[in-house]
Amino acid sequence: MMEQAAIFPGRVRLGMVGGGEGAFIGAVHRHAARLDDRYELVAGALSSSAAAARRSGLALGLDPARTYDNYEQMARAESARPDGIEAVSIVTPNHLHAPVAKVFLEAGIHVICDKPVTTNSADARMLAALAQERGLIFAVTHNYSAYPLVRHAQQMVREGQLGTIRVVQVEYAQDWLAAPLEQSGQKQAAWRTDPAKAGGGAIGDIGSHAWQLADTIVGAPVEALAAELTSFVPGRIIDDNVQVLLRYAGGARGMLWASQVAPGHANELRIRVFGSAGGIEWAQQQPNELRWTPLGEPTRIITRGSTAMNAAGARVSRIPSGHPEGYIDAFAALYSEIASHLLARRSGGDPGAAHFPTIADGLRGVLFIETVQASSCCGGAWTPMLS
Amino acid sequence: MMEQAAIFPGRVRLGMVGGGEGAFIGAVHRHAARLDDRYELVAGALSSSAAAARRSGLALGLDPARTYDNYEQMARAESARPDGIEAVSIVTPNHLHAPVAKVFLEAGIHVICDKPVTTNSADARMLAALAQERGLIFAVTHNYSAYPLVRHAQQMVREGQLGTIRVVQVEYAQDWLAAPLEQSGQKQAAWRTDPAKAGGGAIGDIGSHAWQLADTIVGAPVEALAAELTSFVPGRIIDDNVQVLLRYAGGARGMLWASQVAPGHANELRIRVFGSAGGIEWAQQQPNELRWTPLGEPTRIITRGSTAMNAAGARVSRIPSGHPEGYIDAFAALYSEIASHLLARRSGGDPGAAHFPTIADGLRGVLFIETVQASSCCGGAWTPMLS
Amino acid sequence: MMEQAAIFPGRVRLGMVGGGEGAFIGAVHRHAARLDDRYELVAGALSSSAAAARRSGLALGLDPARTYDNYEQMARAESARPDGIEAVSIVTPNHLHAPVAKVFLEAGIHVICDKPVTTNSADARMLAALAQERGLIFAVTHNYSAYPLVRHAQQMVREGQLGTIRVVQVEYAQDWLAAPLEQSGQKQAAWRTDPAKAGGGAIGDIGSHAWQLADTIVGAPVEALAAELTSFVPGRIIDDNVQVLLRYAGGARGMLWASQVAPGHANELRIRVFGSAGGIEWAQQQPNELRWTPLGEPTRIITRGSTAMNAAGARVSRIPSGHPEGYIDAFAALYSEIASHLLARRSGGDPGAAHFPTIADGLRGVLFIETVQASSCCGGAWTPMLS
Amino acid sequence: MMEQAAIFPGRVRLGMVGGGEGAFIGAVHRHAARLDDRYELVAGALSSSAAAARRSGLALGLDPARTYDNYEQMARAESARPDGIEAVSIVTPNHLHAPVAKVFLEAGIHVICDKPVTTNSADARMLAALAQERGLIFAVTHNYSAYPLVRHAQQMVREGQLGTIRVVQVEYAQDWLAAPLEQSGQKQAAWRTDPAKAGGGAIGDIGSHAWQLADTIVGAPVEALAAELTSFVPGRIIDDNVQVLLRYAGGARGMLWASQVAPGHANELRIRVFGSAGGIEWAQQQPNELRWTPLGEPTRIITRGSTAMNAAGARVSRIPSGHPEGYIDAFAALYSEIASHLLARRSGGDPGAAHFPTIADGLRGVLFIETVQASSCCGGAWTPMLS
Repeated sequence: MMEQAAIFPGRVRLGMVGGGEGAFIGAVHRHAARLDDRYELVAGALSSSAAAARRSGLALGLDPARTYDNYEQMARAESARPDGIEAVSIVTPNHLHAPVAKVFLEAGIHVICDKPVTTNSADARMLAALAQERGLIFAVTHNYSAYPLVRHAQQMVREGQLGTIRVVQVEYAQDWLAAPLEQSGQKQAAWRTDPAKAGGGAIGDIGSHAWQLADTIVGAPVEALAAELTSFVPGRIIDDNVQVLLRYAGGARGMLWASQVAPGHANELRIRVFGSAGGIEWAQQQPNELRWTPLGEPTRIITRGSTAMNAAGARVSRIPSGHPEGYIDAFAALYSEIASHLLARRSGGDPGAAHFPTIADGLRGVLFIETVQASSCCGGAWTPMLS
Repeated sequence: MMEQAAIFPGRVRLGMVGGGEGAFIGAVHRHAARLDDRYELVAGALSSSAAAARRSGLALGLDPARTYDNYEQMARAESARPDGIEAVSIVTPNHLHAPVAKVFLEAGIHVICDKPVTTNSADARMLAALAQERGLIFAVTHNYSAYPLVRHAQQMVREGQLGTIRVVQVEYAQDWLAAPLEQSGQKQAAWRTDPAKAGGGAIGDIGSHAWQLADTIVGAPVEALAAELTSFVPGRIIDDNVQVLLRYAGGARGMLWASQVAPGHANELRIRVFGSAGGIEWAQQQPNELRWTPLGEPTRIITRGSTAMNAAGARVSRIPSGHPEGYIDAFAALYSEIASHLLARRSGGDPGAAHFPTIADGLRGVLFIETVQASSCCGGAWTPMLS
Repeated sequence: MMEQAAIFPGRVRLGMVGGGEGAFIGAVHRHAARLDDRYELVAGALSSSAAAARRSGLALGLDPARTYDNYEQMARAESARPDGIEAVSIVTPNHLHAPVAKVFLEAGIHVICDKPVTTNSADARMLAALAQERGLIFAVTHNYSAYPLVRHAQQMVREGQLGTIRVVQVEYAQDWLAAPLEQSGQKQAAWRTDPAKAGGGAIGDIGSHAWQLADTIVGAPVEALAAELTSFVPGRIIDDNVQVLLRYAGGARGMLWASQVAPGHANELRIRVFGSAGGIEWAQQQPNELRWTPLGEPTRIITRGSTAMNAAGARVSRIPSGHPEGYIDAFAALYSEIASHLLARRSGGDPGAAHFPTIADGLRGVLFIETVQASSCCGGAWTPMLS
Repeated sequence: MMEQAAIFPGRVRLGMVGGGEGAFIGAVHRHAARLDDRYELVAGALSSSAAAARRSGLALGLDPARTYDNYEQMARAESARPDGIEAVSIVTPNHLHAPVAKVFLEAGIHVICDKPVTTNSADARMLAALAQERGLIFAVTHNYSAYPLVRHAQQMVREGQLGTIRVVQVEYAQDWLAAPLEQSGQKQAAWRTDPAKAGGGAIGDIGSHAWQLADTIVGAPVEALAAELTSFVPGRIIDDNVQVLLRYAGGARGMLWASQVAPGHANELRIRVFGSAGGIEWAQQQPNELRWTPLGEPTRIITRGSTAMNAAGARVSRIPSGHPEGYIDAFAALYSEIASHLLARRSGGDPGAAHFPTIADGLRGVLFIETVQASSCCGGAWTPMLS
């Protein structure tokens, strides 16, 4: 349960880069930051267009003095204020993550960044080094890993309830790019299908989420993979479908499928993990249930909020069982976990272990994308995971 | 989409009565008020115990000067401040709704009240008259009616897509009171099974939600009903199961079942409405889907956020299709609709039609509860709806 | 597992009345009789039209000498043959069940009859007395009670796994009569909506199945009920929708809904039973799963054929878990249970307890229908179960 | 609808090899052959043990004179009888399919054979040539392809309703071999995990079914694949899990997963096919529904038996919509299609096109298995489909 403290711990002073007019994910980050009352959005450079940035700031009620025309200006100004932002949320197209993050880290400001964290691993390595050097938090919003029953699953695997992990089946299927939407000028479609801005198509946008979800639950790293990237829609130069075979350390075998051309699937993220002692299944379509089958016994439906949920799940669950939580709830859980760390630092307390993904995970995600691209370039050959 | 305006309209200054330590629904109201950034919680009388009220205010970060020991004090003090609260959320046990609401209405403060709005219809009538006399908004948080696909269904019926409505099947099943939890001292169970505080058991707590959900979609009023209230758990004096036959104006026939003793059902609210031209089905367990069957054709899955959703649904939807919205999202949609009215009043603008339930709906809900209780008292006899 | 004996026990010589051209249920009975190889269909009076009867016999490959023009002739001729039929399946419209069954019983031939067994309780009583007097088997094909997981549920309740039964929710929803199909001359619709031939509309055709399903699982009899029969389709004089409140002996409360005007529901028979120690749910849409929730624990999915299925379920299950069984499989299980009794009689063996419904159950079913009709006639008044 | 002819066409005289005591699939074949009354089982060599063969014949009521000690004897004796069998069902372990089929083909008897049709492609080629040379029917019981909604899907693709096929996701997951069941002496597990008898593990037993299901619907052949066969259970030398990437002619990309070590999955065969104009999804768990999503529109649930089902589906459907058909129904549809051909031959009529899989399909299936094995042997390298 996220809102539980004897004394109100205060709110993180937050800025945002990107997320203005026509954006999708910026609004989600704002909802997520607000839900548990642990952040106050006080500054923004909300668009790469200064006019749009200003209009967006007005719509959100930001102080015009802290609505910046560009992120460099913002980093400079905010780091100079005594009440400047403590953290920045970066919700731009992918290719801007690295330059923006670099500027804020250099200004001594913590970073919360969307994924994939960068469009190449060199940038991710640079950011990791920089964050470490400056002693700053760099969180990556792999939001799906914060669903209560995903955390529950993670703990089950860690505790050995599934036995030795054998098989991992993960998929993320969409249909919004089954037609050439980018040719209509739709803003989301335009940058997400532009290799220069996105860094990867289906593999970067959603394949990386699928990988990270499996990574969260399974725990073991992928050692090698064979991948096919395909561009099905005529005129598209970036992949809109990806299929991967995975070999995990420890012997598990996996399959990953991500597609943007699968009619009937809006955002269907689904994972199944099978071990020698049982199997689990979870899907974002019904995120409040986890199917758990101990080998040889009937499948159990573990419901979010029920007494059957373990401590890891309960920690990020808000409302009673049976009332559905959803996408924003999980995204907010991640933001609140990050806030706990930021506020602990402010107050000099001990934040404990970080449950949220960091730049280290972000780097591994970019390496996964690059390995998939390398395999696909080589005709789908088995390729060791880059490191 | 809730967060969309060219210029930030400001935040409603909100107070809360109830919702302190150990409460469930208070936190939900706070999440709901925060999500779209249309409220600022600035004052509270959060518990009937002054000490608990103060501790709860501290935990929520309220100004200690505006953390009140009791609601009378709060109404008095806030109405005297230039920056006093504009609206109060009442989230106490049911028997306190009426006295609290009365005090705040008399102090000129708008009311947002949980349901059932009162424990008897006389009180509800009194509040309706008072609100009208003072020209104040009195909203009732029948949150389920704000799910996007419930609104979609409502519009479908209004537009005649289902033809003449024939059959209504609605149910709300829980299992948390299948054992005598109230004897363990659990706070929620204690007051909800105490007739003096709750006013009704299953019928008041969840039956009224089921009725209101059907009422929202069907549009026609219930004219008569036959009902059985039962107390299954030994030692319990309030109903924990209710079964009702309904006769709607216009000839439709309905069944309503609400139960707190149904193992396997945490909060399963489900409705099916059948007309001469088609049928629909919606359930809170999977609130992002509406099943719609035009007569003689295959069932369609209408998904929240998709292009198949109508304007009424889209108005209260936030995120793209496929990403699940849940309980808090819908609750927040209701709060944001109320905020639009409160802010329009403040700015002198036209708030348009009220889509949220008001004290008039609240009164009808209490009359429904009383009619069910009257029928059950008379051996389940058919009883005209009280008015 | 139905096909298991060390030595082949032989086949029952079976005749059929009704079930010719244009019929639905006759073919089902033939499939059911054939599946486990315990019957041989050797004679028939397959239609009330002699010409159609002969054509139908030809289509089925019956010996023309045993393809009769009418059932009286058939009963006379078959009872006179040394190799005459041992049992007759009666699959005519409802109003003919009684006269046909009477003739065959009087001819010393066992009866397998569709439901409702008669159109009035006087006839059912007469048949019960006659069968007893002649020492003949009279089976009624309430086929849904032979689904493996329905039997499993029945045993669970008998063993007390659910504790004291509190709530029973049963429904059977169809949509095929949502438009006035009978006005198009469709044969099934014509007789099923003709009070003289059907004896009851939705209540007789499917409501009786719903009642019997609940009766099978719950064990306790209904003591009183309040019912509404409605004819929604213009021009129809028989009920196409029925809603009933039920009071069971022992204190359980129930609701029964049967409808032929519910678009989106082809043949959705569904039951939920809740007791003090747990709840179960089963639906014909997915007959190979039973949801079982021990109070306070996660729901389990009990699958047909799995090791979690009890002996009562296993006795009528044929194929391994995961491969779906369906409507014909369950219908055939009933036929095979009847065959075991018929063959045991032939061989002088002990057939053991009868798991299939008999004329006693058939009579109780007709009394249920009559009680519902009586209540509905009296404005939906609570009415003690007729006996 | 399978049982529909103006004049009874007679029954095929059928023999069976294998399928005696302790077998699973033999009983299924017998149920399937009986359901539509198009076969009469008159002879058998039901076990490789003469004593067991005789006991099994006795249990099934076969004429002892036609209960043979071995299949060579049976082929010789039956081909010499004027009323000898017209066709033989071969339901032995896989390694016996080829020698048994050869003997019966040489005896001029049609063959109905379980899959995989042989343990190597050389044998399959030999059988194909032999069947052609003798002018005999050789049917292979890929039963899943006879589910009504699979046929419906096949027709949809052929008619271009899905547009250009892009993505194929097919899987067949079981859990019965997740523990080393073969070490317990269980007969099914023993031969199915013995490479000499099975020819392949998960790939042969269920992977071949998954391939064939996709093949039926998609129409285009696989051109190349990359595969991983894994043996997870300690002590097992045959694969119990297989993961394959597929490249189809025409550019579609696919994934195939088959596993016997997936707890919670008893026999979950599931396929999704996505084209430029829409997507479909079908699963054996709920075989009476097909999800169909025209691009940009809501998903439709096409139900078996409804008016939305096309002619190809209707041809193999038996009972009205809403009543579930299952595994035996589909298996029987295949048998009845084969019977139509056998009976047309007998009567000199035109059987029309063969909708059932033949030895040509069987050979392609074995080549698929061999290609998967070849790829896996070469470290999962992309391998052109053997031919």
